[in-house]
Amino acid sequence: MGKEMPADMSGFNPFGDLIGLQFVQCEGGYSRCTLEVGQKLLNPHGVVHGGVMYSMADTGMGGAMYTVMEKDELCATIEIKIVYFKAVREGTLVCVTRIINRGKRVAALESEITSGGRLVAKASGTYSIFAVKEH
Amino acid sequence: MGKEMPADMSGFNPFGDLIGLQFVQCEGGYSRCTLEVGQKLLNPHGVVHGGVMYSMADTGMGGAMYTVMEKDELCATIEIKIVYFKAVREGTLVCVTRIINRGKRVAALESEITSGGRLVAKASGTYSIFAVKEH
Amino acid sequence: MGKEMPADMSGFNPFGDLIGLQFVQCEGGYSRCTLEVGQKLLNPHGVVHGGVMYSMADTGMGGAMYTVMEKDELCATIEIKIVYFKAVREGTLVCVTRIINRGKRVAALESEITSGGRLVAKASGTYSIFAVKEH
Amino acid sequence: MGKEMPADMSGFNPFGDLIGLQFVQCEGGYSRCTLEVGQKLLNPHGVVHGGVMYSMADTGMGGAMYTVMEKDELCATIEIKIVYFKAVREGTLVCVTRIINRGKRVAALESEITSGGRLVAKASGTYSIFAVKEH
Repeated sequence: MGKEMPADMSGFNPFGDLIGLQFVQCEGGYSRCTLEVGQKLLNPHGVVHGGVMYSMADTGMGGAMYTVMEKDELCATIEIKIVYFKAVREGTLVCVTRIINRGKRVAALESEITSGGRLVAKASGTYSIFAVKEH
Repeated sequence: MGKEMPADMSGFNPFGDLIGLQFVQCEGGYSRCTLEVGQKLLNPHGVVHGGVMYSMADTGMGGAMYTVMEKDELCATIEIKIVYFKAVREGTLVCVTRIINRGKRVAALESEITSGGRLVAKASGTYSIFAVKEH
Repeated sequence: MGKEMPADMSGFNPFGDLIGLQFVQCEGGYSRCTLEVGQKLLNPHGVVHGGVMYSMADTGMGGAMYTVMEKDELCATIEIKIVYFKAVREGTLVCVTRIINRGKRVAALESEITSGGRLVAKASGTYSIFAVKEH
Repeated sequence: MGKEMPADMSGFNPFGDLIGLQFVQCEGGYSRCTLEVGQKLLNPHGVVHGGVMYSMADTGMGGAMYTVMEKDELCATIEIKIVYFKAVREGTLVCVTRIINRGKRVAALESEITSGGRLVAKASGTYSIFAVKEH
């Protein structure tokens, strides 16, 4: 992770640490993060819990957002929808996120989660952008 | 939790255990689960990570689904959308899930997540139902 | 429609008129609108086009929003998700909409569409609220 | 429209006709349809009603689905989410739809709606695929 990584994404991130999420890249309205599938991330069926893939998308969207925001701006997730295509039992998950529209007050993003190059889930979300003083 | 709890929901659930999710009730197309907010569930802003609330909804929907399925049926999440209303820093999260439509092959569910009685997030999801033999 | 109906909802509404949508009630963050199913609203399968039910929800959400906004505020749809439960061939469709959360800048709403008392579709949407001067 | 156009998409389509929707291409899991903005498609704010763009997406998804289905299969919309980026007052709307995942029983699709080359809305939907005999 280079200097492009905002402070918010490189330091304190307890839940990201808990699930083993790592940012690989974070710049220009784009982010890429990865996660190694381990037993602790499985659901009762023995496959990766849907909440793990979702958490990659939500975190990846936050990372992408911070690359396009001003110093006096904050953002918050309005909503995210995630669709699942394939169950994953092991290996590395990669989540690539892009901003597809950046309005003044609302931005729309998409995250594609792949395993071994295969698309396993896709998320579509919106974030609210506001001035720190509005907070 | 009584006998109504399906085996799937009361035993092996590593990710549920990791985040501290507990089922309180699970019957008749309904489920209720809770989670104590701890430091490990926080995001970089010091509030509960959106993925935690999402994971409660996804798990709660699975729990509600199993109460209405036949022995030779399985289900899988098609998609879930979650909307956030309020950031949470501490306390207990409660997630109540109901099936709002049970078709032959697709069911629709909703989860309401509250903190101290206040609605903090709401999820709307669809699940695919299929015979074990189709799997 | 009484005095509670905002001017926006009772006058110029060409697309609403095209599909035959009528507001029955619109007050206190709630709206109810109806529509008679006719041949012109059918899709190639001979059932009501999904876009018709969606249009009821989107319009109903707009109607509910105007009951809770200040004179110097405007709103715009951020996103809406709609889930379908049952195809409809004839009769009256009723769409009931409620605001489920009203934040300072974003509101969340739900619409239930029924036919003969049976839930046939449900929508979940978010709207952005902004001052006219921001426009 | 050539022979690739399924019968369902080229003939009886009352609601499509009502809003002036025309399929330009429909093959290989892809569809493109267009629509001329006219006064009858406007909402109370004088811009194209959100339900019009949604109807393009829903219809375009149906068109794309029929290019990948067997003769003994039918499909039905499970749910669609649409996000809006920009209001449109006039001109031609173009909706391009692609299947992003085709499972055995559920397919996921995306539609991008543009006006003058500018992305104005994007939809993400899921369709259920089933044998005619199951119907």
